[in-house]
Amino acid sequence: MKIDLNSDLGESFGAYKLGMDSEILKFVSSVNIACGFHAGDPMVMDRTVEMALENNVKIGAHPGMPDLMGFGRRIMNITEEEARNYVVYQVGALKAFVEGRGGRLNHVKPHGALYNMAAKDAKLSEAIVGAVKSIDPELILFGLPNSETEKAAAAMGLKFKNEVFADRGYTDEGVLVPRSQPGAFVKGAETCADRIAAMIQQGEVESISGKIVKIKADTVCVHGDNDEALSFVSTLKDRLENLGFIISA
Amino acid sequence: MKIDLNSDLGESFGAYKLGMDSEILKFVSSVNIACGFHAGDPMVMDRTVEMALENNVKIGAHPGMPDLMGFGRRIMNITEEEARNYVVYQVGALKAFVEGRGGRLNHVKPHGALYNMAAKDAKLSEAIVGAVKSIDPELILFGLPNSETEKAAAAMGLKFKNEVFADRGYTDEGVLVPRSQPGAFVKGAETCADRIAAMIQQGEVESISGKIVKIKADTVCVHGDNDEALSFVSTLKDRLENLGFIISA
Amino acid sequence: MKIDLNSDLGESFGAYKLGMDSEILKFVSSVNIACGFHAGDPMVMDRTVEMALENNVKIGAHPGMPDLMGFGRRIMNITEEEARNYVVYQVGALKAFVEGRGGRLNHVKPHGALYNMAAKDAKLSEAIVGAVKSIDPELILFGLPNSETEKAAAAMGLKFKNEVFADRGYTDEGVLVPRSQPGAFVKGAETCADRIAAMIQQGEVESISGKIVKIKADTVCVHGDNDEALSFVSTLKDRLENLGFIISA
Amino acid sequence: MKIDLNSDLGESFGAYKLGMDSEILKFVSSVNIACGFHAGDPMVMDRTVEMALENNVKIGAHPGMPDLMGFGRRIMNITEEEARNYVVYQVGALKAFVEGRGGRLNHVKPHGALYNMAAKDAKLSEAIVGAVKSIDPELILFGLPNSETEKAAAAMGLKFKNEVFADRGYTDEGVLVPRSQPGAFVKGAETCADRIAAMIQQGEVESISGKIVKIKADTVCVHGDNDEALSFVSTLKDRLENLGFIISA
Repeated sequence: MKIDLNSDLGESFGAYKLGMDSEILKFVSSVNIACGFHAGDPMVMDRTVEMALENNVKIGAHPGMPDLMGFGRRIMNITEEEARNYVVYQVGALKAFVEGRGGRLNHVKPHGALYNMAAKDAKLSEAIVGAVKSIDPELILFGLPNSETEKAAAAMGLKFKNEVFADRGYTDEGVLVPRSQPGAFVKGAETCADRIAAMIQQGEVESISGKIVKIKADTVCVHGDNDEALSFVSTLKDRLENLGFIISA
Repeated sequence: MKIDLNSDLGESFGAYKLGMDSEILKFVSSVNIACGFHAGDPMVMDRTVEMALENNVKIGAHPGMPDLMGFGRRIMNITEEEARNYVVYQVGALKAFVEGRGGRLNHVKPHGALYNMAAKDAKLSEAIVGAVKSIDPELILFGLPNSETEKAAAAMGLKFKNEVFADRGYTDEGVLVPRSQPGAFVKGAETCADRIAAMIQQGEVESISGKIVKIKADTVCVHGDNDEALSFVSTLKDRLENLGFIISA
Repeated sequence: MKIDLNSDLGESFGAYKLGMDSEILKFVSSVNIACGFHAGDPMVMDRTVEMALENNVKIGAHPGMPDLMGFGRRIMNITEEEARNYVVYQVGALKAFVEGRGGRLNHVKPHGALYNMAAKDAKLSEAIVGAVKSIDPELILFGLPNSETEKAAAAMGLKFKNEVFADRGYTDEGVLVPRSQPGAFVKGAETCADRIAAMIQQGEVESISGKIVKIKADTVCVHGDNDEALSFVSTLKDRLENLGFIISA
Repeated sequence: MKIDLNSDLGESFGAYKLGMDSEILKFVSSVNIACGFHAGDPMVMDRTVEMALENNVKIGAHPGMPDLMGFGRRIMNITEEEARNYVVYQVGALKAFVEGRGGRLNHVKPHGALYNMAAKDAKLSEAIVGAVKSIDPELILFGLPNSETEKAAAAMGLKFKNEVFADRGYTDEGVLVPRSQPGAFVKGAETCADRIAAMIQQGEVESISGKIVKIKADTVCVHGDNDEALSFVSTLKDRLENLGFIISA
């Protein structure tokens, strides 16, 4: 059985290095590359695309808010048309690097505040889906299960992958426990691997209250920010492979 | 006989309006649209592409230096790899807007300092030609006649259009008289039209010293910054049409 | 009787010109100069300070959100500490230009989204008041009457000027009618002058429902964005002077 | 005998961390804090100022080119007036943080390309000296010995500190060996300490050709970019103290 592990890459900028891109690439099957708004720059994008192609992973664009100082994590009151055009701009730019190196862009995953705002906002999600479709209707959009983004993609005929998080807790409603609340994070790479296996195979996850809730899981987000994160992903991957999974998009 | 008039468009940014884009579009056959580095933003790019398509003009990308504060006019000591990646990024972004609206990107014209630096720098020109080819080998590059950019395009098999300027003086060597020197500008739209006609038909221009010098002219740059500029272009176009030219890319 | 007319200046950026600063300076007694985040740049700031000093008007800093593309008008979810530091940075920068030319910074008026967010947010207002006090406890803060900003300034011992708008309608609660609603704008410079006179002298304004409501008015904001706006201010000033007012901070 | 060790701090930006500021602060007597153009942001500036004050070191502003993507290291063809205003803006901003926390700005050290361009350009140096004087004539300017910057400061009556580099080689003319050439770097913290001692006490350094050349050394630049750099500085400091020096501005 296949499981897609994805990670956010290309978040360095100029003299600033962020993330352990070359290391995390060994463990994942899909990468989401920053496009210069919340992180990344043309040099970083090109190097990251090159590495991704060498590692034979699926390449996605990771467009964000025009807020480098806030790393695209701050809510900004942008219009739907702005959201649409910011996505077209960033995805178009990344696509040029991918195709220039003989690759093919596979998916789009909005970043940070854009991802979270869209999840709750039908109009914003429609704008993003429209932007992605206008670039290439075969692109896949990554987003939260049961979000407005999923609905907009379904309504507008765009492929969608439900994204779950390896180390995060879920509520009884099957949504992420906010980072500020207890139970937001799950400890232990093996425990996390078992949870993921259940999400993929049974479509279920144990919520913070201990209830078994339905969840759709098409791709699993992992991080490579530091040694600890890398070690977590390495153990997670081993465990999943021991359980019979193949890491593949 | 055909003559291609091109103009730099989409140079507004956020709340800042620059240029009379909707007006100048009536007079030209090609436009070069700013891509967000020296000018332009995703909203402006989309609106400008939309207008250009409605007016059936050829659309080009107008990539510049990462210097909004200096409008891309300041020499910056960027590396060849930076030049290449800045061009890929910007042209890729604009291409996405054009194709998303059902159009096709026709050409690339570097802006300001990037244009002028490349004209004299073989390595920088090669980097830019490589960038454009990697995006689409059918794209046309606009640049100065007899420049390193022209040579790089020829050597690397990229289509090239020699750009001349409607209202500028030329030296005995067939290059532009620097803006800071006497004779840099030619007055009178009809005089300018006659000079252009000679450049296109005879491949000749009268230099500031009164000598007839050879010049290659495939496209003519005109400006639409203010009412005076527009009136100049209008008169220029009438005169060229009276001389039997068709304004067409 | 004195009346302070203030206007937002120095909103140009690089090659982009915005506003008719040299013209509006003839009509006002205080100016608020953009500080490089939402608008303005170091060249524009220095020129604007120079002009303001030549015209003997009071000079204020006009700090905004780090959002040039959105002209500082978009709500951004910044923290209180970010607000504080953004204000210190921008006001400090402008103060250096003013003092470098032998002047003295008189006041601070937050711009756009920062102004409006602070008006409703006690913590954000406290952060801004703290920032201003840390720079110079003698500075005056401009803000909306009855806002959280006014309360924070009072509580923290910072001088505060209630700002009213010459051409805007007010609700029965004495707050601005939102721009999207009918009655948001009042037509006619003479009508506006009479309303202002009533605000200053009687502390009253007629609301959109025709009710006379209390309002505190210490300074009146006017705009110089275009010829029409200038003509409005000119007429307004004449009328106010005919009514016996002196335009003075 | 006193020796001033200075280091460039506050070069982080948003989510990007650069340098080991809290560690290097234990070893130096002066710090130069980035001001938001080439590096740094208002949050970073405030935190760095706070740390510097806690460590009782002298605080300087470290203004740079408006080129975050290039970390201010790329030559840009800015005018003298631009240089002046960029310095006023950045130094003014940092000064506000320092004074807001009860400290006092001690010096200004231009960064990267601005530092190196000014060293060779009399007009640019005069612009920078003028900017610094306009903010506070008591400020000290840091720059290269025998540079145009030193001359401009002397001619215009601004205090100047000749800066040498702990781990760099010098030519027979007493200038830095370019980074791209052999002999640019000197290995071994103890060797470097002995060289510094000679620069401070005898005003001499051994050049790459083995010649003893005159050099003026008022302050010594050290780096805290990584563990190795920190360890170098720690050993350097110990050695200097063993030689009888006191690290002090």
